Amino acid sequence: MNLTGKQLIGFQTKAAGHRNFQGIQAASGEALPQVFVEATADEAHEALTKASAAFKVYRNVSDGERAKFLHAIAEEILVIGDVLIQTACAESGLPEARITGERGRTIGQIQAFANFISNPSWKREIVDEAMPERQPLPKPRLVQKQIPLGPTVVFGASNFPLAFSVAGGDTLSALAAGCPVVFKAHPAHPNTCDLVGQAIQQAAQKTGMPDGTFSLVHAQGHEIGGYLVTHPLTKAVAFTGSYRGGKALFDLAVRREVPIPVYAEMGSINPVYLFSDRLATQGEGLADAFSQSICLGVGQFCTNPGLIVILEKDREFLTSLAAKLDHMPLGTFLTAGIKQSFEHGFNTLNHHPATQRLTASSTPAPSLFSTSVREALAHPEVLEEVFGPCTVAVVCQDLAEMIAFTEQLPGQLTATIQAEPSDLVNLAELIDEVSQKVGRILLNGFPTGVEVSAAMVHGGPFPATSDARSTSVGTEAIYRFTRPVCWQNF
Amino acid sequence: MNLTGKQLIGFQTKAAGHRNFQGIQAASGEALPQVFVEATADEAHEALTKASAAFKVYRNVSDGERAKFLHAIAEEILVIGDVLIQTACAESGLPEARITGERGRTIGQIQAFANFISNPSWKREIVDEAMPERQPLPKPRLVQKQIPLGPTVVFGASNFPLAFSVAGGDTLSALAAGCPVVFKAHPAHPNTCDLVGQAIQQAAQKTGMPDGTFSLVHAQGHEIGGYLVTHPLTKAVAFTGSYRGGKALFDLAVRREVPIPVYAEMGSINPVYLFSDRLATQGEGLADAFSQSICLGVGQFCTNPGLIVILEKDREFLTSLAAKLDHMPLGTFLTAGIKQSFEHGFNTLNHHPATQRLTASSTPAPSLFSTSVREALAHPEVLEEVFGPCTVAVVCQDLAEMIAFTEQLPGQLTATIQAEPSDLVNLAELIDEVSQKVGRILLNGFPTGVEVSAAMVHGGPFPATSDARSTSVGTEAIYRFTRPVCWQNF
Repeated sequence: MNLTGKQLIGFQTKAAGHRNFQGIQAASGEALPQVFVEATADEAHEALTKASAAFKVYRNVSDGERAKFLHAIAEEILVIGDVLIQTACAESGLPEARITGERGRTIGQIQAFANFISNPSWKREIVDEAMPERQPLPKPRLVQKQIPLGPTVVFGASNFPLAFSVAGGDTLSALAAGCPVVFKAHPAHPNTCDLVGQAIQQAAQKTGMPDGTFSLVHAQGHEIGGYLVTHPLTKAVAFTGSYRGGKALFDLAVRREVPIPVYAEMGSINPVYLFSDRLATQGEGLADAFSQSICLGVGQFCTNPGLIVILEKDREFLTSLAAKLDHMPLGTFLTAGIKQSFEHGFNTLNHHPATQRLTASSTPAPSLFSTSVREALAHPEVLEEVFGPCTVAVVCQDLAEMIAFTEQLPGQLTATIQAEPSDLVNLAELIDEVSQKVGRILLNGFPTGVEVSAAMVHGGPFPATSDARSTSVGTEAIYRFTRPVCWQNF
Repeated sequence: MNLTGKQLIGFQTKAAGHRNFQGIQAASGEALPQVFVEATADEAHEALTKASAAFKVYRNVSDGERAKFLHAIAEEILVIGDVLIQTACAESGLPEARITGERGRTIGQIQAFANFISNPSWKREIVDEAMPERQPLPKPRLVQKQIPLGPTVVFGASNFPLAFSVAGGDTLSALAAGCPVVFKAHPAHPNTCDLVGQAIQQAAQKTGMPDGTFSLVHAQGHEIGGYLVTHPLTKAVAFTGSYRGGKALFDLAVRREVPIPVYAEMGSINPVYLFSDRLATQGEGLADAFSQSICLGVGQFCTNPGLIVILEKDREFLTSLAAKLDHMPLGTFLTAGIKQSFEHGFNTLNHHPATQRLTASSTPAPSLFSTSVREALAHPEVLEEVFGPCTVAVVCQDLAEMIAFTEQLPGQLTATIQAEPSDLVNLAELIDEVSQKVGRILLNGFPTGVEVSAAMVHGGPFPATSDARSTSVGTEAIYRFTRPVCWQNF
């Protein structure tokens, strides 16, 4: 497969614009050869106009035909072969094993959605049978079904160039629901986007989907993204990335003449609560596993454990954890911007009067800081997400203080309880409070590693996401892009 | 039961404010004796503080205990007896038979929610079993369940003083979900609100619910409502009423530091599509039934059929319908404000160059106007909702024009197709287009009369509601106030 460097507008390629850019090799900072042309507003408009026209057909494509289209996407991605792995590795700096694994996850996710819509129960049909003899008035037959919302604009994440990008969970759940997708390619991996975009384009053509079911546009700045979100033909938006980016799109969408839903997954610091008996039984092993979870993917996960909540009497564990982190390499960041932002976050914590550094390095490295509940609440900036391998431990005097601190926590994607049954007997109130703050709560695991399955919730209260009533991972993600319609007496 | 004229803050009554008002008899315009004290911001704050404290307990009350509480609300409402009927009739101007029927509907609705949460499947539990042997990593056990969002602010509607007010579908679905409710009483029926509010207060006390599970505050202006919606402890909002009111609350809620969901049902004009063979088989009977649907409850329904879409060749029907409407009395409006607004709407249509009046009366009365597709699209103000018995017919040259017109329609709660099988053979494309615009689509019925049942959708795309992915009638309404949480390895 050749790179195009252009917008994929339905079954065509377009490049009328005059602004160019190139992908960057994460490790070297050097530009990759392919030149990409940024989309014009006219091209974005054309993508949405085609999507809107395609929707009239695509919404009536049978579930079986749509499933075939999804399966074809998976096949076309595999057909790209090694060049996809090499390209994604080059642009993200992530190792080959990780990207190969992520491709597997992406394929599995596509198949999961294809299988999900192959069972008609996915439409959540509810039938109330007629009661023609009812007094004083007969009851009509009512059938409720989910229908797709319409053209959806998707913004991918930099940290999963395959699984949360062009053919990631957001695109696939929208396509599975029956919504055409206009994808805003991530400027951190335009080459990867180009390859996967063409795979979807080809799958759509081969399985007879209407022209405009999928489009992909490139841009470095925010202008085209804003244009797509405020365009009257757009009916929903999905985003994975920073708080700043997601909140900006949310604000645009709710201020439209006709507001539309925005599903923005904006990350979180994912508190891990540690308890005495668990620490005692797990010993060094826990510090080892914890340090690996912190450093996995250079800490560039939405579910990275950036916050430890621990009792004063257990603070010795922090020393062991810091010692482990002192031996972990930093690794290559996805982009120069993320590296810079990590360094800024590290420096802020390192010089903050409210925090104490427990790891050795005084320059940016995998790091552990500690603070007290009082200081953390007085200086909320120390609990701001530092995207990368950096964790802050909040040391609590007692369980009551731990609960009070939890009540003040903003919304999170996940929280983890590390506890033995002997710890758990005292933790009912804490766990109840924690569950109010998160989309997923784990016992004795680590939040990194998100299962793609029916019961998964990758979501959570604001600011973790813009809509806590949804998940962006797992088959339930499809219902972000549907709404119920009731058919009376049909 | 005595009237209090005060705020019901949890189990207490409060009246620290200095601004008073009285309920008004709809028929005479005279004030009812009870003086109501408007809530202060401090009282609204206290209601939400109590609701937030109550939530910690109420969210853990078992489904069975919560169902008992709901049943007790129904009982306490019945205990009020005739005085409730008389009060609601006096304040709304609606006839006794209608209010008695509405009480029955309210009781039925409460029982439906109580029964719904008595079946544990309501929590939509999804279980993914563990796969400890899976390679390369074991799969943890995942359980997804719905949990309540938290304190919910509810605004009732003037046109259903029982079924969409204090103990209406919004309050009951929130309480059923496990969310405490702070209800903003409607100033058009404060006496009715006071009685029903006390019934809920007593039911909560008798069944051992925590203090603060329910509160009710009075106010005539918008200030207290805005205060409640922007208060940090509020987690969700439900509203039934005008576009202006609902959109104002939506705008406040999405601009909060932590945005919250607003479920505003803002009404619509509910198009009815009429076809030749149906008109031929039904004859006069259809004109009769249609005129009654237009005039039911003085046309003061969100589902009132305010728009007819008809082919030029069938326009004779409009003459028959106008003749029927000429014999219908106008009736008593709910409030002086609604009467005034109906008169304004009538006069606007009556003097508009784009419309032609088909009914006889040149002063406000049950009315039918006609216009063309071209005129309707050029002058969207002629399709604005006139709350009351007033309908505009858009006459289409052919089916293609009808479809094109439908594509331009804003979101609606309902649309109705009046068609025989011989008509329907040509209508697949139209019906597909219509279904994109509505929450409910009916065949050969009238949109007034909304079943309270599992399959009902009383919702629809903006501006009919602020969130098309929900319904405010029927048991599915409960999911407006819940979100999923995933329990991993618990």
